[in-house]
Amino acid sequence: MTKVESIQELINKYIDNQHFDGNPSELYEPIEYILRQGGKRMRPTLCLLACDLFGGNIDDCLTPAVAAEIFHNFTLVHDDIMDQAPLRRGMETVYHKWNSDIALLSGDTMLIKAFQYVLNTNKLYSHQVFAELCKVAIEVCEGQQYDLNFETQDNVSLDAYLKMIRLKTAVLLGSVLKIGAIVAQANEKDTENIYNFGIDLGMAFQLQDDIFDCYGDVKVFGKMTGGDIADNKKTYLYLKALELASEEDKATLRELFKMPKGRDEKKIQTVLNIYSKYDVKNIVTKLMTEYYEQSLQHLDNIDLPAERKETLKTYAEYLYKRNK
Amino acid sequence: MTKVESIQELINKYIDNQHFDGNPSELYEPIEYILRQGGKRMRPTLCLLACDLFGGNIDDCLTPAVAAEIFHNFTLVHDDIMDQAPLRRGMETVYHKWNSDIALLSGDTMLIKAFQYVLNTNKLYSHQVFAELCKVAIEVCEGQQYDLNFETQDNVSLDAYLKMIRLKTAVLLGSVLKIGAIVAQANEKDTENIYNFGIDLGMAFQLQDDIFDCYGDVKVFGKMTGGDIADNKKTYLYLKALELASEEDKATLRELFKMPKGRDEKKIQTVLNIYSKYDVKNIVTKLMTEYYEQSLQHLDNIDLPAERKETLKTYAEYLYKRNK
Repeated sequence: MTKVESIQELINKYIDNQHFDGNPSELYEPIEYILRQGGKRMRPTLCLLACDLFGGNIDDCLTPAVAAEIFHNFTLVHDDIMDQAPLRRGMETVYHKWNSDIALLSGDTMLIKAFQYVLNTNKLYSHQVFAELCKVAIEVCEGQQYDLNFETQDNVSLDAYLKMIRLKTAVLLGSVLKIGAIVAQANEKDTENIYNFGIDLGMAFQLQDDIFDCYGDVKVFGKMTGGDIADNKKTYLYLKALELASEEDKATLRELFKMPKGRDEKKIQTVLNIYSKYDVKNIVTKLMTEYYEQSLQHLDNIDLPAERKETLKTYAEYLYKRNK
Repeated sequence: MTKVESIQELINKYIDNQHFDGNPSELYEPIEYILRQGGKRMRPTLCLLACDLFGGNIDDCLTPAVAAEIFHNFTLVHDDIMDQAPLRRGMETVYHKWNSDIALLSGDTMLIKAFQYVLNTNKLYSHQVFAELCKVAIEVCEGQQYDLNFETQDNVSLDAYLKMIRLKTAVLLGSVLKIGAIVAQANEKDTENIYNFGIDLGMAFQLQDDIFDCYGDVKVFGKMTGGDIADNKKTYLYLKALELASEEDKATLRELFKMPKGRDEKKIQTVLNIYSKYDVKNIVTKLMTEYYEQSLQHLDNIDLPAERKETLKTYAEYLYKRNK
């Protein structure tokens, strides 16, 4: 078993042993439901890997790692209300399986429970972990609000998009790694390096997600491609195409992204054709690779022997080379 | 200036000096909007009064007191989404002035900000304050979920109703007082007494609110009476009437509370006539008085000279005798 696998097993066992049930059942069943779904559990994995990297005791890091996982799932529950999303991880969303009131309240409860987990962290650093979790939690809300704003905004810049995904996705990866470093009491410079490693990895991860959404292998990706186009999501692909396209193609893109949300195969194919015409898949892949390589640079900068960093590097590579 | 007035001035000045603005403005403007409305600010007032009672330094208690006020306002913002309420404190709700997505996200941000305020509390007891705030926050969510459940539940018992308002309203009053005692480092027994004082005061407060909603002086109450009846809210008045009424009146009540929500003066008058026939106003007033007197008993039990407790007693009396 690799180190990553043993850490993932530890996390899964720990979460399996937690009780999220209670009364009223309408509040707690959705929490059980979503936290039992699993998923990649990338955030607690990164948290424990960072703690281990800096020689910390990973058992001490389990509560903040699980806090981050609960927090992440809280964001999914609330985002799915706003997106009116019926499916997530191939299963019904809380919003759709119950209703928006229940998703709202059980989401609130998860957010509070995330903080409650931090309370069981060693008091030596629980205050610092709390501060980091509060900071990143607010940033994630800001990111989600920017994302909502973009839906009705006509001129979203590429920079604004990158800022949005930084807040919505990347900072949480940075913060979970930082929290692992805090628990291991790493020095300030290395804590900053591991944080920046997470930020750039998160940027690469999100850009890759955008690419998969258009070009993923349906069988592996587990859902139909073109979902972002159907939802009129202004991803980097769309914004880049808009920048490069002829006036005519620009007008077509804008027009198509004003259609009501919902699958329209002809619309999806037309948009993909324009993307292809301006080579945006390659352009975004190149940017993604830059972020990925930059993230490895931050890892390199950490003042530890290269072999100590192998596990995190392998995990980053696994995320980079994933196909879903 | 009385002690209560000087404490209220301190809180108001402190909140006035806080900055809740930021970007994206869609996220932060609603926070500024609701926190600048004021209101009674009963929760921070009780928190500081408890701290002062036990000889604590009230300046040390300002951050958790404000945390409790922000938390309370977060619950209002999210409750108003669920109730689709257009007005609150005579002003448009966040949900109505912006939209439900913005109310959802700015509410989330307020919940996190509440926790963030606790971070600035003395580390000697910040962990304990955090634990208390997490505990009560979850209870308040449970109370709100019970309240939602009651809307579609046919047989709500009087006990279930009392449990619901305990969670939705009373525990927060208990907890803010307890937090004041924690900051002042009061002993365990007195901390429990002040907590129970708050619980019973909160029960009285909520029952009084239910009475005002039916019988308040419109000019003083600031809104039309009968709102709970229009909204089919199963208050203690309704449930008690249902318990005492003849089969015929019971059927009428049940029928009327199945009408679509919305003002119907005839419906309100018919319900009030049934309430009057079974004397429920007096019955609920009696119960409210029992809670109020029980709360004073807990205050009496605190191991301090009676004159030290005068201020809190006077404030409780002010809440009890309030007319809105």
